[in-house]
Amino acid sequence: MQLGLPRLIKPLDCYFFLLLHVGTNDIAKNNLEQIIADSVVLARRIKEFGVQVVSRSSSLLKEKAQAGTIKSWKLPPVVDYSFCKFRDGFRSRNGLVHVKNPHLDSMDENVLYHLNLGSKTHNLPVMFGEFVCVGGSPNRMKAFAQLMHKELGCERDGKDLKDICAGTDWYSVYKVGPVLSISHGMGISSISIMLHELIKLLHHAKCCDVTIIRIGTSGGLGIDPGTVVITDIAVDSFFKAWFEQVILDNIVVRSTELDKDLVEELLNCNKEIHDFPTLIGYTMCTYDFYEGRLDGALCSFSNEKKLAYLRRAYDAGVRNIEMESTVFAAICGLCGLKAAVVCVALFNQLELDQIKAPHEVLVEYQRRSQHLISLFIKKRLGLYNQMELLDNAFFLNN
Amino acid sequence: MQLGLPRLIKPLDCYFFLLLHVGTNDIAKNNLEQIIADSVVLARRIKEFGVQVVSRSSSLLKEKAQAGTIKSWKLPPVVDYSFCKFRDGFRSRNGLVHVKNPHLDSMDENVLYHLNLGSKTHNLPVMFGEFVCVGGSPNRMKAFAQLMHKELGCERDGKDLKDICAGTDWYSVYKVGPVLSISHGMGISSISIMLHELIKLLHHAKCCDVTIIRIGTSGGLGIDPGTVVITDIAVDSFFKAWFEQVILDNIVVRSTELDKDLVEELLNCNKEIHDFPTLIGYTMCTYDFYEGRLDGALCSFSNEKKLAYLRRAYDAGVRNIEMESTVFAAICGLCGLKAAVVCVALFNQLELDQIKAPHEVLVEYQRRSQHLISLFIKKRLGLYNQMELLDNAFFLNN
Repeated sequence: MQLGLPRLIKPLDCYFFLLLHVGTNDIAKNNLEQIIADSVVLARRIKEFGVQVVSRSSSLLKEKAQAGTIKSWKLPPVVDYSFCKFRDGFRSRNGLVHVKNPHLDSMDENVLYHLNLGSKTHNLPVMFGEFVCVGGSPNRMKAFAQLMHKELGCERDGKDLKDICAGTDWYSVYKVGPVLSISHGMGISSISIMLHELIKLLHHAKCCDVTIIRIGTSGGLGIDPGTVVITDIAVDSFFKAWFEQVILDNIVVRSTELDKDLVEELLNCNKEIHDFPTLIGYTMCTYDFYEGRLDGALCSFSNEKKLAYLRRAYDAGVRNIEMESTVFAAICGLCGLKAAVVCVALFNQLELDQIKAPHEVLVEYQRRSQHLISLFIKKRLGLYNQMELLDNAFFLNN
Repeated sequence: MQLGLPRLIKPLDCYFFLLLHVGTNDIAKNNLEQIIADSVVLARRIKEFGVQVVSRSSSLLKEKAQAGTIKSWKLPPVVDYSFCKFRDGFRSRNGLVHVKNPHLDSMDENVLYHLNLGSKTHNLPVMFGEFVCVGGSPNRMKAFAQLMHKELGCERDGKDLKDICAGTDWYSVYKVGPVLSISHGMGISSISIMLHELIKLLHHAKCCDVTIIRIGTSGGLGIDPGTVVITDIAVDSFFKAWFEQVILDNIVVRSTELDKDLVEELLNCNKEIHDFPTLIGYTMCTYDFYEGRLDGALCSFSNEKKLAYLRRAYDAGVRNIEMESTVFAAICGLCGLKAAVVCVALFNQLELDQIKAPHEVLVEYQRRSQHLISLFIKKRLGLYNQMELLDNAFFLNN
């Protein structure tokens, strides 16, 4: 198997499909230690290629390992090794956004159904830019587009900004100069569909060196409401830094690492804003809003049990909880987009479940992450100091 | 453990938490057959109580069973037995919608954040009715509300129908007589949030004998585009009739059975409409739209592999694919709502991936399931024949 890998995997392949050498026969005749030992040797070899690994076998190992050890969350090495440097493995050399789908080239037209756009019906290359900011709510992303319109000193009133994707119910898309502001709805499924179509769109639009930032809201964990959390790593409900993607009837484990340099750059931007707290932490991504809370229609656990779980999450490094970060990090990472997640905490889930802050307070909280990202974009565009100079000049002349 | 069950589980409990007797020690010292044998005896006992079963242990058994047998999807009996009759176990005797959350009673106010409603700020009992129809798109659910407005012979023009939940970006809610028409966005997370808040709302509104129907769109499997599929059972990507709900760091298996009588009633309604095909079939619920298709930004499998998988799905009884049915069936079942899923197939995924039918054709397809449900509601309300008589009388007098 190991000797065969180079024949299976060509250096220029930009996607892979690989079955781990942990088949039903091995399970039957080997013990856990032997299986893991074999897998580690294989995984080391695989790691050199930077491959996604189909995880049903390793999830079996995970279960066996959980069953076989007191530290029930300590995973066997094979699972750790199955995490390859996706971006090293996949990022395009020329900065173009690459899709990892050989079938697209053979398609006569590419219809972006949920965005109401098409590669034939729209001139995509002239439509799109270098920064993409996404968030759940259409109104919030329109407000962000209007903020960027003002901050970038665009002409006319930002109020008349048009939704590029009007005509579909699913997503709103606004463009202000090099900035796209897109809503993605709630949850992993909704943002996943948007990302697939967005990435195809950026690919057709021949966009280069795209930076994509999710500007969201979240529940805080042991932090003050209104704190902005820049996500270090997105983790699942078991505090693991992966996203388990079902593909047909396989489960593929995808890395949820985000761009470390971008995280630092965003934190540095915040140092020039002194009016709200910002920190770097893990972000936990859940599949729903209510099942881990006391105020849903269904609840079968006590407040103590919930708090014990949330404290375990806090101890694991989690500082906020939302519903999109893992799949966002996974898909963007695979397609070579530099991605960041910046979410404001609306409340502290270690203290209460229900969001009780007045509407205007919540709106002010949501402006914080938008303000941070607008500063980041202006600095990237070299407009930040210029604006200051203009403001000073205006001040001096009046 | 078996002898202790009656002390653990009281007949009047409406939610349960139970650890299966398949612990780490057993895994270490017993073989698969012994573990399953023990579990089956225990599961038979559990089944008498009608309990949700925490499935990490059984998912371990599932993995072991998959590893230990050639028929890799044949699950050991324990997993089958873990399916209890939720509705028998949980349905309220008086037809009221019951929440299964003891914490709600102790809450001073219940804020339905995503619906922009509250138990203190709104008079919920006078607001809501007996039929709830949900679907992904706000515009589609407004169109359905307007159709019901016309079909129920309401006064005034249906065009001025107000969105009860205007002021939130997330969902639209329209009320026409006893019918609520609600949008739920795309995917399991989005509909799950709406259902939790809807069920709390129906509970506060003291609604009785509520029937809830998801009117959706879907990809067909071996059926003509435009065919309406009434879901028999909702299944996951592995063709299993369950929904795996993560609660804190546990995975709970929930039944996705739907109301058989309601399915029959809906099929009978269709017999009075002869202008489009309708059938009963399994509906497969996926976590995303693109990862199982050839036209996403990421694809690592061939068309042949995809078709082989879809043919296996077809052979398992699946006739259409969408993204909400399993969690919809699970939550509604647990809360005693009679639920159905009625989705029109926009295309046949065994033939093509991309949705290429003209907009007006897709709109006509979507009207089909709405038309069927409006007939169902009119018959339930005893209005169907009355309307006919009125129409005839009108015809005779003119």
